[in-house]
Amino acid sequence: MPASTRPLLVDVHTHIYTPTYVDLLRKRDQVPKVVRSNDGDERMILLKEEEGKGASASGRPIGPQYWDRAEKIRFMDTHGIDVSVISLANPWLDFLPPDEAVHAASALNSEVQAYCSSYGDAQAAESSFAAQTKKRLFAFGSLPLVPGVKVDEVLEAVQQVKGLSHLRGIVMGTKGLGKGLDDPEMEPIYEAVAAAGLVVFVHPHYGIDTSYGEQDNGHALPLGLGFPFETTIAIARLILAGVLDRHPDLKLLLAHSAGALPALSSRLASCIAHDPHVKDRLQHDFRYYLGQLWYDAVTYGPEELALVERVVSRANNYESRDEQLAFVDRVNDRKDLLAPEGHFPGVERILFGTDHPFFPPLEGEGDRWRSVDENLDAIAGVAGWADGERARVMGLNAVDLFGLGI
Amino acid sequence: MPASTRPLLVDVHTHIYTPTYVDLLRKRDQVPKVVRSNDGDERMILLKEEEGKGASASGRPIGPQYWDRAEKIRFMDTHGIDVSVISLANPWLDFLPPDEAVHAASALNSEVQAYCSSYGDAQAAESSFAAQTKKRLFAFGSLPLVPGVKVDEVLEAVQQVKGLSHLRGIVMGTKGLGKGLDDPEMEPIYEAVAAAGLVVFVHPHYGIDTSYGEQDNGHALPLGLGFPFETTIAIARLILAGVLDRHPDLKLLLAHSAGALPALSSRLASCIAHDPHVKDRLQHDFRYYLGQLWYDAVTYGPEELALVERVVSRANNYESRDEQLAFVDRVNDRKDLLAPEGHFPGVERILFGTDHPFFPPLEGEGDRWRSVDENLDAIAGVAGWADGERARVMGLNAVDLFGLGI
Repeated sequence: MPASTRPLLVDVHTHIYTPTYVDLLRKRDQVPKVVRSNDGDERMILLKEEEGKGASASGRPIGPQYWDRAEKIRFMDTHGIDVSVISLANPWLDFLPPDEAVHAASALNSEVQAYCSSYGDAQAAESSFAAQTKKRLFAFGSLPLVPGVKVDEVLEAVQQVKGLSHLRGIVMGTKGLGKGLDDPEMEPIYEAVAAAGLVVFVHPHYGIDTSYGEQDNGHALPLGLGFPFETTIAIARLILAGVLDRHPDLKLLLAHSAGALPALSSRLASCIAHDPHVKDRLQHDFRYYLGQLWYDAVTYGPEELALVERVVSRANNYESRDEQLAFVDRVNDRKDLLAPEGHFPGVERILFGTDHPFFPPLEGEGDRWRSVDENLDAIAGVAGWADGERARVMGLNAVDLFGLGI
Repeated sequence: MPASTRPLLVDVHTHIYTPTYVDLLRKRDQVPKVVRSNDGDERMILLKEEEGKGASASGRPIGPQYWDRAEKIRFMDTHGIDVSVISLANPWLDFLPPDEAVHAASALNSEVQAYCSSYGDAQAAESSFAAQTKKRLFAFGSLPLVPGVKVDEVLEAVQQVKGLSHLRGIVMGTKGLGKGLDDPEMEPIYEAVAAAGLVVFVHPHYGIDTSYGEQDNGHALPLGLGFPFETTIAIARLILAGVLDRHPDLKLLLAHSAGALPALSSRLASCIAHDPHVKDRLQHDFRYYLGQLWYDAVTYGPEELALVERVVSRANNYESRDEQLAFVDRVNDRKDLLAPEGHFPGVERILFGTDHPFFPPLEGEGDRWRSVDENLDAIAGVAGWADGERARVMGLNAVDLFGLGI
């Protein structure tokens, strides 16, 4: 398709390990760490389980695709990606003591700003957008979110990120200050991030244990299920703690389309409504809050992506906790209320992503990454969406959410 | 709605604890156990965590709704349920030593057969179906699936269940013989169950740990997320072990609509395709196997239920492992292939359920159970389904799958 007619494509889920960060990992003798293998190649070991036996032992190869900007741009050009909003990959600074984390966050944020802002050669950009703005790289900053850090030091990092022109949000794991995202100690951080207008990209790292049997399945289950389960639990806890009631302006973008949260949201709502301990805690039915979140479009399938849109589209029907019961009558009386033809408000909360440089092609596959095409196909394949919906997900939502036109 | 015009309603997810079983729990001083509380009422404590502090401490009240058949029939009549296919509730016989488990399974199966077959008074039945067959109660039997049991003893129990006229399947947790559902030791059991034409109802019990933060949310997260995650992991492992390749006739009915499996199935397929260790292991793309399974309709929301139908409807598109790549071209060239108007083959794999007697109404709510109405509403609310699709899910699929017309 000629560049002039194809929609703007913005990748909001694309990672780097900066040179500074990889050096941090090279100096370590415990996971996470980077080691040199017998054949001279470097390998990155992120999780304790990766040191064990079996197919996932000794981590994964790590090379320039993780830190070389030219490789990132080449990947973008191959797939027609106009703009990337990059983020430090997991496990961020989780493994550092507080004082080192504070210094590393500051250094990393400056490094990432330079990575983005010093790329001025927009001639290679196919799209008029990037050619016009001369900006193809934006980023999420990092915060020193580790146990024992002073909250004021985290708030200083928020201000640093706010002041860096190419940084439009922060990337965050699920541990918070060590006690999860429902920790009351996180409150001033949520407040500051929301006030700064920064988008919080919530991403898993630790995974949920999938060893419910003895067969070795490599990375398939930790990545396929453990990762999305971690995000699902963390965000469900955050919502149940009332964080979105207290911080309606907090902008949370959830990795991997929030994992299983959309598919289990009505079940969660019912479990909450049936539990005297929590049923009166939130201002709204649980499903309402799914309309307050943003989702990357990293689902790998159109039916799964459609579900995300549908649960966001319906969210306002659940503003009241009693709406759930009223729903019974609505379904029975007015079925046409359920899915207005051609009306997909939820589409405004979904943003294309690739998860680069993870899920690279296997040997013998072509230049285009299958994982990228799967996610582009998912957007192309959602039943009912027209070009307008697809254009929003592919790039326009990101322009709005991150203010990329500025 | 007059009885003669409403569709047959069959509940395939409805539990009992028989008197024999409750007596087993009363004799125990470790979980699972039934204890008498200070106010004289009995309480059932199923999980270690329920003994701890917090809102979920000391389990839940247990009374006649768990074992009294008259209560089950009253519940059925209140909600217009014509037929129930009951199952022993978790944790089944998991806590017994092998010899006791073998004897208990045999006794329980006879007891459940009597529970069902001695109910001959179909006059109270509103539907012509139940009045005609005089049968309103069918059941899943139990197997002595505990570590250390002889496989032959399990196979004898399969034959016992096959020989009992009201037993049409077996209920099974996720531990198998103690090593999960991907344990090679389970092979002869899968083979025997498939040969006997029995339906396997796979149900969670242990849950996946949701304590990813410190806030106490009662039962909401263990039930809302921990349960469906457990089922998802267990079935993903079973598929990855090739069980459905080797036993294409095995009929697995998955509790809570297979939890997060439908929503994460394309992600799993991609993770598998990108992992050299597992990418060539299965005969088909992972998504193909979702079309080989059955699902209860216990999702509590129409959008979630629609997803289950869609992933089953699409399953045959993924017969080949290479289909995933061909899909790219299909989406781009022929969008109309994706969702043929009014064609929902997946609907034949979905069956209404209630999870009775769990999720009872809270104080002050009416006779009808909100949890039941949520699941009926979900069926009523799926966009695109007509009366024919709804009738299949509400009862006709169960008649076919369990041979209830016989």
